[in-house]
This record gives sequence, structure tokens and C-alpha cells, in this order.
Amino acid sequence: MPEIEFTGTGAAAQVPVWGCRCTICLRAASIASYRRRPAGLAITGEQGVTLIDAGSHHLAERYSPEQLQRVVLTHFHMDHVQALFQLRWAGGRHKIPLFRPDDPVGCDDLYKHPGIFSLQKPFQPFQQVEWPGLRLTALPLQHSRVTLGYLLQTPGTVLAYLCDTAGLPRETERFLAESPIDYLVLDCSEPPTRRPPSNHNDLNRALAIVRRLRPEQTLLTHIGHHFDNWLLEHTRQLPADVSIARDGMRIPCP
Amino acid sequence: MPEIEFTGTGAAAQVPVWGCRCTICLRAASIASYRRRPAGLAITGEQGVTLIDAGSHHLAERYSPEQLQRVVLTHFHMDHVQALFQLRWAGGRHKIPLFRPDDPVGCDDLYKHPGIFSLQKPFQPFQQVEWPGLRLTALPLQHSRVTLGYLLQTPGTVLAYLCDTAGLPRETERFLAESPIDYLVLDCSEPPTRRPPSNHNDLNRALAIVRRLRPEQTLLTHIGHHFDNWLLEHTRQLPADVSIARDGMRIPCP
Repeated sequence: MPEIEFTGTGAAAQVPVWGCRCTICLRAASIASYRRRPAGLAITGEQGVTLIDAGSHHLAERYSPEQLQRVVLTHFHMDHVQALFQLRWAGGRHKIPLFRPDDPVGCDDLYKHPGIFSLQKPFQPFQQVEWPGLRLTALPLQHSRVTLGYLLQTPGTVLAYLCDTAGLPRETERFLAESPIDYLVLDCSEPPTRRPPSNHNDLNRALAIVRRLRPEQTLLTHIGHHFDNWLLEHTRQLPADVSIARDGMRIPCP
Repeated sequence: MPEIEFTGTGAAAQVPVWGCRCTICLRAASIASYRRRPAGLAITGEQGVTLIDAGSHHLAERYSPEQLQRVVLTHFHMDHVQALFQLRWAGGRHKIPLFRPDDPVGCDDLYKHPGIFSLQKPFQPFQQVEWPGLRLTALPLQHSRVTLGYLLQTPGTVLAYLCDTAGLPRETERFLAESPIDYLVLDCSEPPTRRPPSNHNDLNRALAIVRRLRPEQTLLTHIGHHFDNWLLEHTRQLPADVSIARDGMRIPCP
């Protein structure tokens, strides 16, 4: 059965934040299962693995080049791309298709030296591709760079991955309103705040999206240590159908 | 007593190279002490640590922000810079000075978002700075980007760190010829080859530099897996005063 795994659930600073001595960061530094690597997904099907983003450095140890069918980037911020700067130098003739949003700059010299990765034509808004066992639709998001979310459909499961984003563009929201969603995986970097961050969701904004899209279940991701600290005392305030993603968490996709 | 430690001794691909099944890479994948992270040094004195380059991701676990006195970059290729993209988001008011060559571009958005790092005025060729217990001289190298080597002088030890480079510019060689060198730490990415690489030394070119500069001892670094494989059978062909650096190796600096 295909399954979707969180390769990471952290914001750019990760958890623990370097040098931070808050309760959350000290806990994550001593207990690996509380750690949050940069946010991303791995979708494992019969024919191999599709990575959504590649910001986590453990990917080199976790997967072989032959296991990776493709990498799909949401955007070119370093915390979503950085592992590729090591992976690209793999030897052999095997090439891994790299799908991406339409960002003319990319990340540092990745376009110039993609190495093992074969750059695919950029996705256009709402473009759909169909691979064996997986249909993917590119969904424009609202972020400081050209950023795409993805609607991921396996034969029995619909998952919307919306990270990184501050709210949602109207067209994306309209598109999603017409699709029943089993799992909404949503950017929620910060606890509820009066001044929500300009490039991400705080919990208020995330819950407003949940109320509008009405998915079966929501998993919040791209979590910063401030939000993790807030959750220590307020987890019960989350709606019953909203939970917090963890690194390594798996979603079965019948 | 101050000491200098190799935080990494590998080429950009590191050892093991992702997915490679050569003898060297399989060994490094199973025995951590054979691993080669991206090349760099840590100079530990009474007042703290000076990093030369920050390409190795274990730096976040190895040092606290308070331990780091400064970071000195040789150049802005990703394998020498990449750990800064995590470290920069440390909290607190503590700032870490970041010294660098005169490269107008830098690496991705590091100049725009340096975070905890305070960008220092770029080094000019042969510029000298003196910190308590450590004098540093910037030495132009020959590489595909503006790149500096550094002559590092503690009260009792002179170490020249020349990585990444293909041969040496004449002025740098002239400067070094006038300085007795205890330790030459030199780029040697490849085994002896008829067509030496355009941006690095192969062993022939490295040994020619050793013969001209005549340091007390030489340690080769920035080592790729092809060179490591060659060494499996040819280590005895190295001159007695030339050896191969290893990650974690320490040089006492009286």
C-alpha cells in the first residue's frame, strides 16, 4: 500500500534552533524523536519514492539514487532545497527528474550544476501530471517566492500539501473547495498572534483555512519552536480533526 | 594549548558519495571515522573557536553560538558555506563576525539574510588581521570563484591552509616562499592524472607545490573518493613528510 511520510516538519530554523535553550529545543536536542527537520514529504509507491522538497540532510542516508523516482520542489528557499547540493554529485548515469515551480532564479548554482537531477519544465498553475499510482496538481500559494502547493491523489486518498504559504490565493481556494480532501497538510509556523507572519500562517490563519476547506483531517507542519512551546500548554485547544505533524509520521494511502 | 582540528576533509561530493558502491564509499558508509565531510578547520584557542569554512552540517551540534568567535570563509561555493543556512537563524542578540573574500555575489541569499552573522568588510589580497593568539593573512588562490587561502600563525605554529585551488598564483607562492611553514594543508582532490582538474589539484600538482614551498609537514585535504581509492594501493608512494588528513584530526599549536 502506498504511504506518505513526513521527512521533516520544521520551519527554516528547524527544532532545535541552533543554540536555543527553550524547553522545546532542549528536549529536541536530547530526544531525537522531538526533532523537526526542514519540512517535506516522501511518497512511497510500488515503483519508488517521490520526494516533495529536499531540505533535510538525512535524505542521503535514507534513500538510494535508484529508490528516488523524482523530486518535486514547492519553491527554492534553501530549507526546501539544500540536500540537493550534496545529492547532485552522485555518480553513475541514473538521472532523477526534478520538478519545480516557474522560478527563473532557482537556488544558488543548482540550475547551472544540477548533476544527477534532470530539470523538468516548470509547472504552470493548476497543471496536472499523472504518474502510475499518483496524480499531482500544482496549486499556487502565497509566499515571498514563487511557491506551489500540491494536490496529491493516490487511488484511494486525496492529500493537499500547502506549505509554505500565508493564507491562500483565491483561485487555489476555489479549486480546493471543489475537491473533497482526506488530509490537509498545512503551513502553521507560529502560535496564534495579533500580527500574523507575512510569509506563513499562524494558528488563527491556519484554522480559518481549515474551516473553509473542511478536510477530513488536518496535519499542521512547518512548525517553529515558538509554536511548539505554545502547544505544550494549549494542545487541547486544537479542534479534534486538527493535529500536529511529527518527523517520520506516516499516512497510509489505500 | 591552542589546536587546529579538521572539521572536514572531503571534496564537494563528500565521502561516501551518495549512492556510490566503491570500496571507499561502502567503507565510509559503515564506519563513521572514514567519512569525509566538506573541508574546513576549527581553530580552538583560549577565547573560543575560529571556523575556517562552514560546509559541514555537524557544526550545529558540535559548537554553541557562544563558542564561535568568528567564521572565516575561503569562498562561496556551497560545500564551504552550507551549514550557515541553518546556523544563521539562531536566536538571541549574540552576533558572530563573518569574514570573507571579496565576492560580490556570495551564496544564494546569505548576504540578504545573514541572521546571527555580521558580515565583515571583505578581505583584500594579503590583508593581515591579528586576533588574540591568532594572526591571519589572506592569500589569493586559483579557483572558479574568488577564493582565499589563509596563513594562520599562532605564537608557536605557522599553518598555511590552501583549499580550494588549482596550483598557486605567483604572488601567493612568492609570499609563502618567504615564510617558514610548519604545516601546509593543501587541496588534493584527485589522484595523479594526465589531465589535472581545472579547479583543484591532483597529486602531481600538489606534490610540485610541496617541493617548491618545502613545509615541515604537509597534510592533503579536499579529498575525493577516486583519490581515496587510489591511496588504498599507493599510500607508500607519498613522500615521508606528506600525509592524508582525516576528519577530526587535530594539530597541536604550541
